[in-house]
Amino acid sequence: MNLVPNLVVDRLPVYLRALNVLEAEGKKTVRSEELGPRAGVNPELVRKDLSYFGRFGKQGRGYEVVALQAELRRLLGTDRQWSMVLVGAGHLGRAILAYPGFVSEGFVIIAAFDTDTSLIGELISGMRVRPAGELVSFVQSRRVDIGIIAVPPAAARRTAEVLHEAGIRAILNYAPVMLRLPPGLLVRNVDPVIALESMTFWRSHEVA
Amino acid sequence: MNLVPNLVVDRLPVYLRALNVLEAEGKKTVRSEELGPRAGVNPELVRKDLSYFGRFGKQGRGYEVVALQAELRRLLGTDRQWSMVLVGAGHLGRAILAYPGFVSEGFVIIAAFDTDTSLIGELISGMRVRPAGELVSFVQSRRVDIGIIAVPPAAARRTAEVLHEAGIRAILNYAPVMLRLPPGLLVRNVDPVIALESMTFWRSHEVA
Repeated sequence: MNLVPNLVVDRLPVYLRALNVLEAEGKKTVRSEELGPRAGVNPELVRKDLSYFGRFGKQGRGYEVVALQAELRRLLGTDRQWSMVLVGAGHLGRAILAYPGFVSEGFVIIAAFDTDTSLIGELISGMRVRPAGELVSFVQSRRVDIGIIAVPPAAARRTAEVLHEAGIRAILNYAPVMLRLPPGLLVRNVDPVIALESMTFWRSHEVA
Repeated sequence: MNLVPNLVVDRLPVYLRALNVLEAEGKKTVRSEELGPRAGVNPELVRKDLSYFGRFGKQGRGYEVVALQAELRRLLGTDRQWSMVLVGAGHLGRAILAYPGFVSEGFVIIAAFDTDTSLIGELISGMRVRPAGELVSFVQSRRVDIGIIAVPPAAARRTAEVLHEAGIRAILNYAPVMLRLPPGLLVRNVDPVIALESMTFWRSHEVA
C-alpha cells in the first residue's frame, strides 16, 4: 500500500460516490467507459487506478457495482464508523456540526469542545458543547479517531498538539494555518476561502 | 506572475490571516521569525515566498503589518469584492449559504439556484432560491466571478459546463466529482469527506 500514489487514493472516494449513484439507479455492472465520465476521470485512468488493488473488472463485462463499492469501502476504511471530536464551536464549528455529508459516509462527531465559557453547555445541532479542559481526558477514555480543528488561527497549532498528545492521529483542519506534522500525524486542510483566494490570485494577474 | 509556484500562492492567504490577527492585536511590525510560526511556516520560507513579489521587509525591522496586509490583499485580488452564484440549494447548499467565512474576506453569494421546483422561492439564509433555468441569463446580465457547485455528483459536470458557457471562469466545486478543466476555467475542489477518506485509507492500511 505504501506504493500507491496519493493522487490515486484521492480518486477512490470519487469512484465510490459514482458507484453509490449507479447502485441507487439499479445498475448491476458498470464499465470504466461509464464509471469514468461519472467520476470525471478518464476510463483508462480508472482502470489503472483500480489495478493497484487487484483485478476487479471481468473481461468485457466491466465491474460489479456492489462488489466494487464494498471493496472501495474496505480500502478506504469506511466499512466501519470513524468517531471525531470537534474543537471550536463558534460560527465555523456550528457550520461543521450542521454539515450533512459526514454521517452518511460513516464519520460521526461524538463531542464538541470550546474554551469560551459562554458557549459551554449550549446545544448545537443536538450536540452539547463541552469545556476544552475535558478534551484530553475525553479522547483518552473513548475511542476517538479524528480531530476537527475549527478554532481561531492563533490557537490552531496548540490544538493540534493537544489532540496529538491525547492520541489522535488524523486531523481535519478548518483553520487557515499550515499545520506542521509531527511524525505519524495525518493532517488535511479544508478552507474554502483559501481555495477561492488561490483562484482570485490568478484571475487578478492575467494582464500582468 | 506566471513563474510563481502554486504552493507559494496557496500560502499567501495563510500569511494574510496571520497578519489580520497581528493587526487586531495592535502589532505594527512583524519579523518572519514571528509571522512564520503563526502561519505554521518556516520563517525562511516566509521570506522566500514574499520575495517573489518584491522587497517588503526592512533590514532588521521586519515587515510593516498594515502594508504587507494591503499588498497581500492586492496580490490575492481580495482588495475588491468577488460575486458568486451557488448552484444547488439542498442540504449542502444550505450549509454553504450559512458559511460565515466568505463575506468577511470579500466573497459574496449573490444568488442561489436549484432545479427542484419545491425549493424555488424558498428563503435560505436570507437568499431566495431561483429556478436553475434562469442561471445563464442571470450570470450574463450581472457581473458574476465565481460559481459554487453544490449539486449531486451526476449533475456536477453539466453544471460546470453551463457556468463556463455563461462566462464564469472560476469554480468552487463541493460535489465529489473530479471536474475536467476546459482551457481558461479554474476549479478548486472542496470536499471534507474526501479529505477524511484519504486519511482513513492510510490509517486502515498501516498493518498491511
